Amino acid sequence: MVLLLFFLFSRLCRVRSAPPLETINASSPQQSRIKHLNRAARGLPPPPPSPFQEEGEGMSTIFKAIIALLIYLLVGLLSFFMLEIELEGTATSATVDALYFAIVTMTTVGYGDLVPKTVGAKLFTCAFVFTGFGLVGVLLSGAANYLVEKQEKLLVQKIYLKYMRKEHKKELVVDDDEVVAAHWKMLVAGVAVVAHFVAGMFALMWWEGMSFIDGFYLVCVTVTTLGYGDRSFRTQAGRIFAIFWILSSTLCVAQFFLYLAESRTEERQHEIACWALHRPTTPSDLEAADMDGDGVVSAAEFVIFKLKEVGKIAEEDVQDILKEFAALDYDESGTLNVSDIHISTLVKET
Amino acid sequence: MVLLLFFLFSRLCRVRSAPPLETINASSPQQSRIKHLNRAARGLPPPPPSPFQEEGEGMSTIFKAIIALLIYLLVGLLSFFMLEIELEGTATSATVDALYFAIVTMTTVGYGDLVPKTVGAKLFTCAFVFTGFGLVGVLLSGAANYLVEKQEKLLVQKIYLKYMRKEHKKELVVDDDEVVAAHWKMLVAGVAVVAHFVAGMFALMWWEGMSFIDGFYLVCVTVTTLGYGDRSFRTQAGRIFAIFWILSSTLCVAQFFLYLAESRTEERQHEIACWALHRPTTPSDLEAADMDGDGVVSAAEFVIFKLKEVGKIAEEDVQDILKEFAALDYDESGTLNVSDIHISTLVKET
Repeated sequence: MVLLLFFLFSRLCRVRSAPPLETINASSPQQSRIKHLNRAARGLPPPPPSPFQEEGEGMSTIFKAIIALLIYLLVGLLSFFMLEIELEGTATSATVDALYFAIVTMTTVGYGDLVPKTVGAKLFTCAFVFTGFGLVGVLLSGAANYLVEKQEKLLVQKIYLKYMRKEHKKELVVDDDEVVAAHWKMLVAGVAVVAHFVAGMFALMWWEGMSFIDGFYLVCVTVTTLGYGDRSFRTQAGRIFAIFWILSSTLCVAQFFLYLAESRTEERQHEIACWALHRPTTPSDLEAADMDGDGVVSAAEFVIFKLKEVGKIAEEDVQDILKEFAALDYDESGTLNVSDIHISTLVKET
Repeated sequence: MVLLLFFLFSRLCRVRSAPPLETINASSPQQSRIKHLNRAARGLPPPPPSPFQEEGEGMSTIFKAIIALLIYLLVGLLSFFMLEIELEGTATSATVDALYFAIVTMTTVGYGDLVPKTVGAKLFTCAFVFTGFGLVGVLLSGAANYLVEKQEKLLVQKIYLKYMRKEHKKELVVDDDEVVAAHWKMLVAGVAVVAHFVAGMFALMWWEGMSFIDGFYLVCVTVTTLGYGDRSFRTQAGRIFAIFWILSSTLCVAQFFLYLAESRTEERQHEIACWALHRPTTPSDLEAADMDGDGVVSAAEFVIFKLKEVGKIAEEDVQDILKEFAALDYDESGTLNVSDIHISTLVKET
């Protein structure tokens, strides 16, 4: 469950986070270059950098998240190491058992092959699992966000751009890159899930001496975080393997199901976009789109109308910005020009 | 874990789903009424309804989802009822045990107080838990979406609007409704979590004869879907209670942590919006915002510029729509008017 909070929140962030500054100030590299030259020629200063778009913000967040996770696991390791005598169940070495118990608890697999025995150990375990929820949901969100975006860019889009784009491009009506990318991501995640299944079953048969069916059963019970506990990792070698494998396999399966859901959303979004872009525009649409009431619809007005239609933006978003626009438009011409900006700067200085 | 997929996907949908048609075609009730009257006076037809905005779509989705969930649980109940002799562990009545096992498996709590014994039962359990993942992630998404939206509207916004809006409104710089609403939702979910804790502990002490500490421990281990299985519901009355309580308490806790993450996102979103709306507009911003290159920035152009700045929309969204705009603009005037629409209708008819 905790792992899904991880992904869930990363998605939440990704959908709503601010884009890099260059996509705001320029629609294409060419346009950007021309604008930059023009600006320099006229002696204009570069636009102020956004405080939310600092270079390396992703890296510092991921660094903080890794530190937080390490501290969390270290606290778990030390606490459960000291509580070792207060855990009951199949024991191997104290260090391995403590880390194994921390991982099994953090991922909510909870086999129950090691359980807290005393009141103190029970209360600490409750605090530990809830802290894990909070930590993963809130603190690691930035890192997840960064990782997911980076991974998508590097892995999926590279493969996709190299081999698939040209063939697909021909029959497209609306750019369905996102739908195709979602299918590719699902395929990559699916391959990773199969690899984890094979590795897990091999390890269980090798170190734990399980049968093929029991290995498969325990892998299923683990990656879904069910963790009945009738079968589990009971040897030291198996538990060392489990420490790494449980974390990465549960992440993988969660990601796969996430992509499954996402690809369905993308398909629907694509349908809506197709419908909105290709339905005939009626005179009443023109009327609805005409924001300034001049009887014609400019390109920008048409863009806003269509964005509202496909659900990308809401009326409140537009209204807040229009208020600010009205405040800036000192000469009440219905447009902003350089003199409006000069006046607003003077007003703010005085 | 499966429960978080549920919420996760509902969020994904909510962020990206299309708004109701009335918010597209009108910015306010007054404006809508005036537009409608104007349109009727000129004998214009009403705008075509969107195929994605059907009345009662939410209801039919929720109906389908409930049917799917009932079928899923019925299949689980029947199968585990027939496999009863193939489950091992503490047994009460066959029907209660089968449903209890299905719920414990579906929510990935997995106590392990009942486990599949034979190869057939193990393989069926694996299939059952993965089907649950798929079902919840994909099929119930519409229902989750509908429920979450409805609940938010009815419960939270009503309370909030009644008691909080007026006091808060005074010191606001940007409309932070969403931030306040996120805090309220968290509070409501928090109260629900506490209620589930109290109910669960009471039931465990009453029916299962547990101590206060053990009751608290088992509640924690259950709502986080850990489910070690050293303590569990072992009496028939306890299990009947557990069937309902496990489902609703795990949902509640997942929702609470989701709101926790959401309120943090909303706060950040609010900061970005504040910064973007209130930073001084520079001449180079005007240049960047001027889409049609006429030297001045219209209201619509300003809205698009700011939406890009706060990350609500991306450049690709705008480009796709601009292509359609160019295709519709037959007289190449840079604006759409009624004659463009007439020509496009004629072109499409021939």
